[in-house]
Parts: sequence; structure tokens; C-alpha cells
Amino acid sequence: MASYNKRVHYKHPKRKINVGARPGSIIIPDDAQEPRIIIYSFNEDDLQTSKGKDMKTITQQIDKCKGHTHWIKINGLGDANLIEDIGTFLGINLLVLEDVVNTHQRPKFDEYEGYVFGTSRIIYFNKDNELINCQFSGLVKDNIIISFEESHFDYFEVVTTRLKAGKGVIRTAGPGYIFYALTDTILDNYFVLLSKIGDMIDETEDKLYKSPDKSIMFDAQQLKRTLIIIRRACWPERDKINDMIRSESSEITKDTKLFLRDAYDHCIQAMDMVESYKEVTSSIIDLYLSMVSNRMNEIMKVLTIISVIFIPLTFIAGIYGMNFSRQDDHGRIIKDNMPELYVNHGYVYALVGMFLIGAIQLFVFWRKGWFNKL
Amino acid sequence: MASYNKRVHYKHPKRKINVGARPGSIIIPDDAQEPRIIIYSFNEDDLQTSKGKDMKTITQQIDKCKGHTHWIKINGLGDANLIEDIGTFLGINLLVLEDVVNTHQRPKFDEYEGYVFGTSRIIYFNKDNELINCQFSGLVKDNIIISFEESHFDYFEVVTTRLKAGKGVIRTAGPGYIFYALTDTILDNYFVLLSKIGDMIDETEDKLYKSPDKSIMFDAQQLKRTLIIIRRACWPERDKINDMIRSESSEITKDTKLFLRDAYDHCIQAMDMVESYKEVTSSIIDLYLSMVSNRMNEIMKVLTIISVIFIPLTFIAGIYGMNFSRQDDHGRIIKDNMPELYVNHGYVYALVGMFLIGAIQLFVFWRKGWFNKL
Amino acid sequence: MASYNKRVHYKHPKRKINVGARPGSIIIPDDAQEPRIIIYSFNEDDLQTSKGKDMKTITQQIDKCKGHTHWIKINGLGDANLIEDIGTFLGINLLVLEDVVNTHQRPKFDEYEGYVFGTSRIIYFNKDNELINCQFSGLVKDNIIISFEESHFDYFEVVTTRLKAGKGVIRTAGPGYIFYALTDTILDNYFVLLSKIGDMIDETEDKLYKSPDKSIMFDAQQLKRTLIIIRRACWPERDKINDMIRSESSEITKDTKLFLRDAYDHCIQAMDMVESYKEVTSSIIDLYLSMVSNRMNEIMKVLTIISVIFIPLTFIAGIYGMNFSRQDDHGRIIKDNMPELYVNHGYVYALVGMFLIGAIQLFVFWRKGWFNKL
Amino acid sequence: MASYNKRVHYKHPKRKINVGARPGSIIIPDDAQEPRIIIYSFNEDDLQTSKGKDMKTITQQIDKCKGHTHWIKINGLGDANLIEDIGTFLGINLLVLEDVVNTHQRPKFDEYEGYVFGTSRIIYFNKDNELINCQFSGLVKDNIIISFEESHFDYFEVVTTRLKAGKGVIRTAGPGYIFYALTDTILDNYFVLLSKIGDMIDETEDKLYKSPDKSIMFDAQQLKRTLIIIRRACWPERDKINDMIRSESSEITKDTKLFLRDAYDHCIQAMDMVESYKEVTSSIIDLYLSMVSNRMNEIMKVLTIISVIFIPLTFIAGIYGMNFSRQDDHGRIIKDNMPELYVNHGYVYALVGMFLIGAIQLFVFWRKGWFNKL
Amino acid sequence: MASYNKRVHYKHPKRKINVGARPGSIIIPDDAQEPRIIIYSFNEDDLQTSKGKDMKTITQQIDKCKGHTHWIKINGLGDANLIEDIGTFLGINLLVLEDVVNTHQRPKFDEYEGYVFGTSRIIYFNKDNELINCQFSGLVKDNIIISFEESHFDYFEVVTTRLKAGKGVIRTAGPGYIFYALTDTILDNYFVLLSKIGDMIDETEDKLYKSPDKSIMFDAQQLKRTLIIIRRACWPERDKINDMIRSESSEITKDTKLFLRDAYDHCIQAMDMVESYKEVTSSIIDLYLSMVSNRMNEIMKVLTIISVIFIPLTFIAGIYGMNFSRQDDHGRIIKDNMPELYVNHGYVYALVGMFLIGAIQLFVFWRKGWFNKL
Repeated sequence: MASYNKRVHYKHPKRKINVGARPGSIIIPDDAQEPRIIIYSFNEDDLQTSKGKDMKTITQQIDKCKGHTHWIKINGLGDANLIEDIGTFLGINLLVLEDVVNTHQRPKFDEYEGYVFGTSRIIYFNKDNELINCQFSGLVKDNIIISFEESHFDYFEVVTTRLKAGKGVIRTAGPGYIFYALTDTILDNYFVLLSKIGDMIDETEDKLYKSPDKSIMFDAQQLKRTLIIIRRACWPERDKINDMIRSESSEITKDTKLFLRDAYDHCIQAMDMVESYKEVTSSIIDLYLSMVSNRMNEIMKVLTIISVIFIPLTFIAGIYGMNFSRQDDHGRIIKDNMPELYVNHGYVYALVGMFLIGAIQLFVFWRKGWFNKL
Repeated sequence: MASYNKRVHYKHPKRKINVGARPGSIIIPDDAQEPRIIIYSFNEDDLQTSKGKDMKTITQQIDKCKGHTHWIKINGLGDANLIEDIGTFLGINLLVLEDVVNTHQRPKFDEYEGYVFGTSRIIYFNKDNELINCQFSGLVKDNIIISFEESHFDYFEVVTTRLKAGKGVIRTAGPGYIFYALTDTILDNYFVLLSKIGDMIDETEDKLYKSPDKSIMFDAQQLKRTLIIIRRACWPERDKINDMIRSESSEITKDTKLFLRDAYDHCIQAMDMVESYKEVTSSIIDLYLSMVSNRMNEIMKVLTIISVIFIPLTFIAGIYGMNFSRQDDHGRIIKDNMPELYVNHGYVYALVGMFLIGAIQLFVFWRKGWFNKL
Repeated sequence: MASYNKRVHYKHPKRKINVGARPGSIIIPDDAQEPRIIIYSFNEDDLQTSKGKDMKTITQQIDKCKGHTHWIKINGLGDANLIEDIGTFLGINLLVLEDVVNTHQRPKFDEYEGYVFGTSRIIYFNKDNELINCQFSGLVKDNIIISFEESHFDYFEVVTTRLKAGKGVIRTAGPGYIFYALTDTILDNYFVLLSKIGDMIDETEDKLYKSPDKSIMFDAQQLKRTLIIIRRACWPERDKINDMIRSESSEITKDTKLFLRDAYDHCIQAMDMVESYKEVTSSIIDLYLSMVSNRMNEIMKVLTIISVIFIPLTFIAGIYGMNFSRQDDHGRIIKDNMPELYVNHGYVYALVGMFLIGAIQLFVFWRKGWFNKL
Repeated sequence: MASYNKRVHYKHPKRKINVGARPGSIIIPDDAQEPRIIIYSFNEDDLQTSKGKDMKTITQQIDKCKGHTHWIKINGLGDANLIEDIGTFLGINLLVLEDVVNTHQRPKFDEYEGYVFGTSRIIYFNKDNELINCQFSGLVKDNIIISFEESHFDYFEVVTTRLKAGKGVIRTAGPGYIFYALTDTILDNYFVLLSKIGDMIDETEDKLYKSPDKSIMFDAQQLKRTLIIIRRACWPERDKINDMIRSESSEITKDTKLFLRDAYDHCIQAMDMVESYKEVTSSIIDLYLSMVSNRMNEIMKVLTIISVIFIPLTFIAGIYGMNFSRQDDHGRIIKDNMPELYVNHGYVYALVGMFLIGAIQLFVFWRKGWFNKL
Repeated sequence: MASYNKRVHYKHPKRKINVGARPGSIIIPDDAQEPRIIIYSFNEDDLQTSKGKDMKTITQQIDKCKGHTHWIKINGLGDANLIEDIGTFLGINLLVLEDVVNTHQRPKFDEYEGYVFGTSRIIYFNKDNELINCQFSGLVKDNIIISFEESHFDYFEVVTTRLKAGKGVIRTAGPGYIFYALTDTILDNYFVLLSKIGDMIDETEDKLYKSPDKSIMFDAQQLKRTLIIIRRACWPERDKINDMIRSESSEITKDTKLFLRDAYDHCIQAMDMVESYKEVTSSIIDLYLSMVSNRMNEIMKVLTIISVIFIPLTFIAGIYGMNFSRQDDHGRIIKDNMPELYVNHGYVYALVGMFLIGAIQLFVFWRKGWFNKL
């Protein structure tokens, strides 16, 4: 697996704010992508796929397949007109449409008269290993589900594949089930993400035990931040699923609720993993800091001990380098001022003395236990 | 964007306290500004604006436009008489008036017989980049809304502009909607503020990665404090909006409540951003402290290694600088005391020996991994 | 304002414990002051003040003014008989009387058959700038309120002044209102205290930015501890006021409850300020610790750099101080052993070489950015 | 008071675990003491005390004094037969008996058909100043209360004394009141314990301000741990008392509940003191750590400044100790190589120069404020 | 007991994720073990044990012993067919079967029409002292209980032994009681685990007080992590048992619920021990870090003091090693430049002076209290 030494690109949520604007204004962010529309119209036996361009093509498709379930999949939110047209066509409140384009919603599930609306956070590593955190929102009314995604990335490929295969309940359980299936895919991807993060934590921990360096601190901080992002998506997701389970809208059938209860368990399990990983990450940071400090202390201690052993010796050498001397008139040195200097083999005695002093110091330090690793 | 290297001027809330005073006393703070009054009287088709001077001018305007909705906008709380007159005119409890002038209220929403009262915190950076945290309060009774602001700054310009434009529901939805619109503007400005803080965090983080210096610590602490101020405003604001939604006063209509639910979501979103920013700020501080400590350790380690390499060498030089010597009667040196000194090319040997000792030290340190960055 | 460099005298609550004693025993602490009693008997038009000595003088006064409201103000709890007599006279449970003399109660409000009982914490700086934390308790039965204070200090002067002035509802609203007024005075004094603490925080913060020294750490810890004491008084006070508001005793009239709701808001506001001040204090400590560490690092770095520059130079000087030399028979030095020493202007070359080495070191350190403040 | 420099002997709760054993097995821990039984049979006028040996002696005593209240006080749980016999005699569930001998229960109060059962933690310093944390459990059925204590220590002496004195309600209020009295004695002893801990904290704090040494860290950690043990006993005790107050068993009479409400207040007060002491202890640790670090920094700074002042001076001395010299053929030194050496009074000039350099360094360091205590 | 110096092998929960797969898919992890099946069929008097191979052998056994209670014990989840067959035979929801094979469930208890399902975490040290954290799940329907374990390890030996012994209620209380007995065994093993951890903590603490080294940090971190794993299992276990107590399924009889209430208490007790151990572990880490820092400070202080004492002395020696000198034409030294050098016994004076300087330094440092241990 690729290493994790990049900075997590956590896009600080910057909504385009129009202070005091009429509530329900559809304000498209500057970097929004132009929409790509696919309409899946299906019943148990039949599946028709058509590309949509605007509201007109969509309504044509809906009219064509009466009695079918329609999934209008919109990737890209760059067209305010399209979204307003959808709102008009289905009779959606402007405030809801505002939530579709203002892509910094917390996951939530709201019931309105005749339709339901929900959002989730889509989080994944893209192929450049950057963490993407964007919004999914879904609208279910009668036999129609409209899903909105921010980017063109085909995140829900697995669902469309299952739909095309046509097995299981996916073709017959109505648009509410599709909404559930999308939510469940998002949750499954949280586990993919968490499994990736688990690997990263393992790697970081291995590095900690084998060759600790300062990248550990950065990696651990990045992991922590990523986990916070996932947690921030997971917590309200749980409430959202709970709201769906307790919902009395006809859009969420009793069978779908059984699956939702399963999704609820998954959500709690994901949160549990996030908390678990956060604690492991914190303990990695603590251990790393403690190791750095220990190692640094060790080095400084050894270095200082070396210095301290030589400093008195150098002093002694300095003493015998002093020029105290008396010379007689003939320049002859009178040997009574620094008599050691003129002793036979005085030099050897001095060297031996120095060696002894050094050895005693080492012995004292050793006895005091200063060479023990603490 | 301007850098954030100023100290956030967090005005410690200092109310003028009159210990044991009769509750409901209108005590004007010394630095209160004298009031500027504008009255907007409007219905769907008509909007009349008039400047007010005192209670009399206000009542004249109200009498003139019967059936209109009146918004009495008061900037500056420096006139106790005016506030008492308003209280008498509308039959407002003295305790409520006390809350208007005691500008350190937490956001709240209270229902009384026949009228409702609410406060919010207005927070913004003024043009000197100082953080201003002052109070907005609003009183809604029948077809009248009175808004009180502490300063003359035209904070609600966007609302008056919308009112003058006359589009949307703002002209027809009654004074409760005006109250909502003001609250919503305050919330929108929290997002403006948070977006500014997001930029500051990005700047600080860039500085951390590119050229860390000690201003980071101050900046991060300031950011944290600012975030705490916003959080302190946001949390009770949420409760307040919730109280408004559950209110049964006729002043808050069912349509307004729909918008309030939207505002409630915004409030939670703002709180979410605050928490998110706080965690990022904390992680910046942690990383910075770890970097400082790492860097300092690195420097001290290199410096100490240099010292330790030279200390034994200097000791050796000191040894050969000692004056152990014997001279014969003619002053001639007898070469048996420090024989190394008189060896041919002894000096070169000594230099080579020193070089070797230094090299061995370096090699040992390198083998122990002391040059690795940890 | 006087500086805050004294240790907060936080009296660890030491009750006189009589393990296993019969519950409801009146045990007077050793340092209790002897009681001073004043009886205020008043109705709308009349106010009579009389000093009490014992139960007898009190009952005389009560009998004298039938129909009046009586406020029996007792400062000092040193007389067990008096308190037992009051209990007998009014029919008070022994457990309640125990709470009066055991002056370490948390603020609380209890309803009994026919009477109500409440306690609060009186906290103030006395004239020696020591923090005093003592107990107020009040008993309301029929038309009588008895207030107990620990010390002789005239804490409720403002209330007696208002009572004597006779304005407002204070004379007519009954003993429950007096109880409210006393509680409100205590709350107002929390704000006085908090405002003083706000000034101290400002001072400490100014010191931090202008001339940081180690008193900051002590001051901040003291401030924190004072804030904890206030918080400990405030939290249960809030519950107490809430209990009073929801009380169904006839002693707490509906009008008084309106004022209590205001007091409740004040209590929350005080708690808010306490939390806010605590966070500011923590951030002062963090900044101070970071500054100390930065400054120390800076000093150590500069000092070590100076050392490291001179250590190799001293080594070189040591080299040329070595006595390698050969002399011929005439004592003449043969110049082939340390030839540099005998080169023309060798000394100057050596000095220049040393200067260059020092300069190169400085340059390398500068290039590595070691002179940057981090 | 004796100092607190011993390690708190916190017995890690080690139950004898019999994995998968039939629930309700009476497994006696190895170190359990053999039981000592005293039976108090009393009514208002009469008190008979008899030592019990086994179930037979107990039933004899109960039969002898029909109509009396019986308190069977058992110190020591070492006899499985006795406990099983008691269970059989009174018809107690095996699971309850298991809780009696498994002495690591949290305080709790359980109601069964016909009897109630409760446990508490007895915590005290024994005469060796070790912290003892053992279990009290009580069974109340009809007119019998059985109390179980782990050790032979006469913890409830005060209650038996009161019982013998025969004053107050203790003789007449039934076995439930005895149970309350025992619980209350345990609570009173928490205050004795807390008062002792308060003294220890004061001592530790005095040491901190007067002669800080490293025992402070240990003491504070021990205090913290002791406080945690008390807190762990207090929290569930509060719930237990609350359960007793809300109990509808006939064993807990209405009068006893009045006293329990008082005990409940005491419990909260104890918890409050525990929290308060914990915060003081934490602040002691923080201050100590900050003092240690400050002091160490101060020492290192002074030492390093001394070194740095002498290092350049030593370098200069080294320079003038170099042997650059030229001698003519007669061994006479030609004075052009290190001319300073041969200047008149050059030595004095050198000393003065060195002194100046040292003084300038001191001045620069002083100007930079490095001598300020930070 | 074996030391704890190994890394806890905390298997990061890695489920095999099939993103977007049909909910209820039975996906067997790669490392799942092939199942071993034992069927216990019993009533009060009879117990038949038979090995099962596949669904057919199971149904044969069930048919053979009509009226008996059947416990189908499956160790190893490696056979998707078997699990699907069981699901078909008993009519179990696919989502439940998915939870059986996806072995990262939190403990939970779910009721379905006609059957109940529950999971727990089995945590133990295997013989290699590695921490194993695997899943137990149980299905109770009519007179059948099916237990699923991940590994072949005979974890529930105690229960099968009790079953074979045939004493107590285990034979007669139905499959719900078996489910309780298995849960209770798991809880009992938590206590075994916690007791082992308690020993490890004691060991680590002893090491801390006797011979602290850096393994303490690792050990404490590992202990903390193990405690977190247990806590993660315990918390939801409590909720699960609570759900079982409140369950209205006929599978959980009233008698079993009495035992469950006991298990609930055990669960809380285990959580209490976990929290207690966590705090002890944290305090060990704090003390260790403080000791390391103290010790390091002590060493550095002593070393630096030694250096600082010798540095000025070496400087003085350097001074008298300078070559300031004047020689007359005859090479005779003129004694006016460094007159000290030529004083009688100047050398002795110098040595005495140096000794005095060193002694004064030591005295000053001692007076400043730098030799005190802080």
C-alpha cells in the first residue's frame, strides 16, 4: 500500500455565503461541475437507461415508462436552472433545493409532505491519494428517486451493476430501497476507508518500533484528522438512519427498514472503529514523543559524560603547561617552583594520574547508575 | 487577506453592577451610544421610512400608518428614558427592558403575555480587524417589531435592502418574519466569520509547514479564543431557535417556523465548523510544539557532538603543552621525560593521531544512529 | 486595583464531624462567632427595627407587631441554644437546624410542611484581599423570614437600605421576596467578584505580554482556583433557583417567581463568565509555558553556539602551544618538527585561519537557519 | 498528623473466580477471617447482647426474645456453612449470599420479596496508616438485620454505643433504621477521611511553597488515587441511598426516609469535596512540575552563562600560550612573530582586555534580559 | 506470572468488505477455520452427544431426540453452505447469518419473530500470551440453541462439564439458560483477564519503584490498550444483558432473567475495574515520565556543575601558560612582564588560589540550594 506521507487535503468547508439573502436561494459554487444526468427506469423485468440533458429529456423518459421506478442520477451541481426545474416539476421546497447545492450539509433525513430528502457525506481517497469529502443528497417522491452527487466520479458503480444484473429485491422494492442501497454503499466505503487507515496505522506503528523518525508525528496527526472527518460524517449518519427507521413516510417501506436496522449496526460499528483507531493513534503519538525524548536524553547524557571526564584532565594538563619557573642568571631553571615537572618520569606519573581520575569518574558515574537506560 | 497577528480584543463582559438594586432597573453603561431611530412602516405595496427622535415621533408614525407592519430599528442604547417610554407604551416588563440595556445576555427567546423577546450575539471583525461581540435584542408585539443594537454600525443593511426591494415574503409575513430575518443574517455572518477564520487557519498552517516561527503559537491561541467566543454565541442560539420553533405565540407564524427549521440546521452546521476548526487549531499547536522541540533537539545535538569531538583533542594538545622537562646544567633538554616530544616528526604523528580520534568518534556516533533525525 | 499576588486562602471545608452522632445534632464549630440579632418588622407604612438578644426578645417583637412581616437577621452562629429555641418556636426539623450550623452546605432549597429552607454561598474578597467563602441560610415560615450568616460582616446592607427606604415591592411582597432579594444580592456580588477577577486576568495577561515572570504561573493557578470556588457555588445555586421557581409553597408567590426567573438567567450568565474566564486563564498558562520554553531554548541555543565556535579555535591554539621541538646541542631549536611555528608571520596566518574557521561556522549555522527564532 | 509518605496500599480487587461455576456459589476467599457473631436483641426498654457461635445459637437468641428487634453483627466471612445456614433460615436467594462473600461489590440496594439487601464500602486508614477498602453488607427481613463486615475491626462502635445508651429513636425505629445508622456512620467516616486528606493536601501544599522536593509528586499521586477510591465508593452510594428513599419495602419506614434524605445530601457533599480536592491536587502537581522546570532552567542558564564567559577568555589565553617564535642562532627570540608578547606590560594589557571581554558579555546578556527570572 | 513485555497483538478488525453487495451475503473471511460441530441433546435425565458433519447429521440428531433441548456447538465459521443450511432449516433472516460470519460485531441482542440472536466478544490470552479477541454468537429458537465460535479453542469447557455433570438447573432450564451460561462464562473470563492485568499492573508498578527502565512506558501503553479492548467489549455487553432482561421473548424465561440481573452487576463491576485500572495505568505513566525527567535533570545538573567548576580554573591555568616574556640579549628572562610567574612559591599560591575558587563556587552553588533534589 502506498505510504501516507502526504498532507490530507482537508477542504475547509467554504460555502458561498450570501449574507441576508432570501432563504432558499440557489447559489451555485464557482467550482461546481456541469451536471451529467442518467435516468434508470426499471421494473422487475425491464431496465431502460437514458442520458438526460435537461428537464425536458427527463420528463420524456418518465412519461415513456409509466409504472416503472425512475432513478435520476445527477453527477455535478453546476446548473441552477436544472435544479430549479426539478424543484418545480416535483413540487420541492426551495429550502431543500438550497441544501442540495450548498454541499456542506451534515447527514440528515427530512420528511416533507409527499416526499423525503436525505444527505450523506461521500468520503474516499482519490487516485492521487487525496482525501475527498463531498456530498450526496437524495430525493424520493412517489416512484422517483433523484440522487445528486458533487463530482463526475462513478461512486455508485456497484449499485448500478446490481441494478443491471436485476437480482435480488433491488428492482422491485421501490425508490426508497434504492436510497437505502446508496446509503449502504457509502457506509461500506467507510469500512474500506477505515481498513485503509488501519493499514496506515499498522505501517506507522511498525515504523515506530523499527525506524522511528519525525514523519511519524505528521502521519499520526494526519490519521487523526482523517478519523475526525469520518467521525464527523458517521455520527449524524447514525441519527439519519435512525430517523429513517422511525419515519412514517410511505417512501420507506417496512422491508427497507429491516435493512436500515442492519445499516444502523454498521454505522455504530464504524464509529466504534473510528474511536478505537483514534485511541491507537494517540498512543502512537505518546510513545513516539516519549521515545524521542528518551533517545535525546540518552545522547545528551553520553555526550555530557564524555565532556565531564575530559574537562578535569584538560585542567591538569593546563596546570603543567603553566610557566611558573625561575631561572638563574645563566638561564638555568631552578627546580623548586613546580618541582613535579622536574621529577624523573614525572610525565608518566602525570599520565597515570589523569588516567586514574578519568577511571574514577567513570566508576562513580556507573555506580550512580547513570549508564542505565531509564 | 490581512494577517491575524493582532491580539483579539476580547472585551471581558463588564456589566455595570448595582448590587442589590431593585430588579428591573434601567442602568445605562457609561460608554453606551446615543440612540438613532429609524421606523419602517410597510405593507405589501407601501413602505414608509421615517427617522425617530423620541417616543412621540415613534407613536406619530405608528398612528399614521394603521394596519402596516412597523419595524422600529434602534441603534445605540444610551437613552434610559426612551427605553422606559417604549416599555410603558407597549406594556413591557421592566425585567425585559433591563435585559435590553444589560448587553451581556446569552442568546435567548422568552415569551410573555402578548409579546415575545429575544437576544442574539452580533460578532464581526470591524475595519480595524478587531473582533466585536455585541448584543442584538428584538421585541415583537402585535404588528410591531423593535430591534435594539448596541452600536451605530449598519449591520442589517442587507435586510433593509431586501425590505426596500419589496420582493419575497418579507413585506407580507409580519414582524415575526422580520425577527427571523435578522436572526438569520446574524447566523449568515457567523459563516462569514468562520470562513475568515478558515482562511486564517490555512495561513497559519501554511506558515507552520513553510516557515514556522513563534507567532504561530500566538495566532493559534487567538484563533482558539475567537472560536470559543463564536461557540459561546452559537450554542444558546440553537436553543433559542428551538424555543422559537416550539413557541405557540401568534407572533411566530407557521410559515416562519419552516424557515426557522432551516436556520436551526445552519446553527448546527456553524457549531460543527467551530468544533472542526478547534480540533485543527489544536493539532496545529501540537505539531508546532513538536517541531520546535525536534528542531531545538537537533541543534543542541549537533552542537554537543561538535564540542565532544574537540574536547578530547584539546586535552591531547594540552598534554603536549605541558612543561615536563629536564635540562642539564647547560640548559640542554634531556629527552627522557616526554620522549614523544623529541621524536622525529612527532608533531605529525600527533596530528594524525588526533585526526584519527576525531574520526573514530564520528564513526561511533554515526553507528549509534545519532545523526539520524528522530 | 490591588495586585493579586497573594495565595487565595481557600479554607478546606472542615466540618466538625461527630461520627455516628444522632442525626440532627446541633454541633457548633469552635470558631463560630456569637450571634447578633436584628429584627425588622414592617408593613407597607411602618418599619420597626429592634435588636434581639435571645428568643424571648424575638418573640416579644413578633407579638408586638402582629400582621407585620418579620425579618430576623442573625449574624453569627455561636449559640446552640438560640438555634434550638428558634427550631422549637417555629417547629423546625432538627435536620434543618443541623444544616444551619454545619456551614459547608451546597446551595439548596428544601420544602417542608409549613416552611421552606434554603442555603447559598456568600463569596467575597475581604479588606485584606482574602477570599471568604461562607454560608447564608434562610428560613421562611408564614410571615417570618430568618436569615443566618456566619460572620458579623454587614453583607446585606443594600437590602436593609432598600427596606428602610421603603420603595418598591420590598415592603409588601412578603418574606419570600426578602429571601429572593438576599439571594439576588448574593448573585450580584458574584458579578462584582467576577468583574474583579476579569481585571486580574487582564493584568495577568498584560504582564504576560509586557514583562512575563514566574508570578504569572502562580497568579493563573490562583485565578483558576477562585473560579472553581465560584463555579462550585454557582452550579447548585442554579438548581436551587429552579427548585424555587417550581416550588408550590405559598411562601414563594407568583410575583416573586417572575423575579426568580430573572435571577436564574443571571446565574447562567455568571456560570458562562466563569467558564469563559477559565478558558482564558488556561490559555494564559499555555502561552506562558510556551514562552518560557521558547525563551530558554533561545538562550541555550545562543550560549551553545558561542561555545561551539570557540571550542575548535581553542583546540588550534592548544596545538600551537604544544612543545614538540628539537634542540641541537647548543639549545638551538631545529625547525623541522613544527615548521609552521617558525614561518615568517606564522602567527598572523594562524589568527587569520582561526578567524576564518569561526566565520565559516557562523555562516553554516546561519545557513541552516539556526539563528531564526522558532 | 503523620506524614503521608507511604504508598497507598490499594488492593487491586482480586475475587476468587470460578469460571463457569454455578451462579450463586458461596466461594470463600482464602484470606477471609473466621466469623465473630454478636446478637443485639432490643426493644425500647430492653437490650440483650449475646455472642453467637453458629446458626443454632443465633436462632436460640431470636426465639428467646420474641417481639424484639435483632441485629446480628457478623465480623469475618470465613465460614461458608454459616452463611448458607443464614440463607436457608431466612430464605435468602443464593445470588445475594454470593454478593456477601464476594467482597468487591459496588454499593447497591436491592429489594427482594420479603427482604432488602444493601452493600457499602468501608474505607479508613488503619493504625499503620494503610488505606483499607473493604465491604459492608446488610440484610433486613422482618424484625432482623444482619450486618456482614470483612474484618474484626470494630468499625461500628459508635452505633453499638448509641444502642446501649438507648437514647433517641435507635431502639424503636426498627431494623431499617439500624441499616440507615450503619450507612450514615460509613458516610461520616468518609468525612473523617476527607478531612485527613484535606490536612495532607495542606501539608503537601505547604511543602510546595516552602521546601519543594520530589516527594511532592508521589504524595500528590497517592492523594489522587485515594480520592479516586473514595469517589468510586461515593458515586454508587448516592444511587443506593436514592434507591432506598424510593423503595417501597416496608423495611424502610417513612421516618427513616427523612433521615436518608439527609444522608443523601451528605453523600453529595462528600462527592463535592472529593472533586474539589482532586482539582487542588492537580493544580499542586502542575505548579510543582512548573517549579521544577523553572528551577532547572534557572540553574542550567546560570551555569551555561558562566561557561560561555570563560570560553573565549580561555581561547585568548590559549593564543598567547602558542609557541610561535623565531630564535636567532644564539637562541635569542626575534620579536617580530607575536609582537604583543614582547610589549612592555603586555601581560597587564591582556588581562585588562580579557576582563573587558567578560564584562561586555555580561552586559550584553544583562541587556537581553537573560538574568531576569522567567 | 510471565512478564508482559510483548506487544499486544491487537488485530485491527478487518472485515472482508464487498462494497455495495446485496445485504445478507454470507462472505467467509479467508482465514476462517472449517467448522467442527458437536450436538448436545439433553433433558433432565438424559444427555446424548454426537459429532455433526453437516446439516443432515444435525437434523438426524434433532429428530432422534424429540422433546430434548439441543445445543448445536459450532467451532469454526469456514463453511458458507452449512450456515446457509442452518438459516434455511430454522428460518433465520439472512442479515442475522451475515452477522454470524462477519466476526466484528459489537455485543448485541436482537429479537426476531420466533427466535433471538446475540453476540459477545471472547477475549483471552492464548498460550503464546497473545491477546485474542474473537466473536461468539448464539441463536435460540424453540428448544434449540446454536452457538458459533470463531476458533477451535474449547473456550466453554466449563459449561459442557457442568452439562455433563447434570447438576443444577442447567439441564432443565431450557436453551435460553444455556445462552445465559455461555454469556456468564465470557464475563467470568473478563475477570480472569482483569485479574491477570491487575498482576501485570502490580509488576509494572513494582518495577517503577524498584528499577525503572523504559520498558515501563511500553508496558503501560500495552496495558492501556488491552483495557480499552476489554472496555469496548464490556460496555455494549451491559446493554445487551439489559436488553435480554427487558426482552419479552419466551426464549428468555423469568428464572433466567434473575440470573441475568446478577450478570448485569458483574458486567458493571468489570467496567468499574477497567476504569480503575486505566487510572492506575495513567498514573504509572505520569510518575514514570516525571521520574525520568527528574533523574535526567539531576544528572545534567551534576555534570554541568562539574564542568563549570573546572572551566574558570582551566582559564587561570591558561593565563599562566601564556608566553608573555621579555628576554635580554643573553636570553635571560626579564621578570617584569608576568611577575607572578617568578615569585617564590608562586606555583603553590596559584594552586591554592584555584582550589579556593573551586571551593567558593561549590559553596555558592550549595547555598543556592542547587544540590537539593527537587
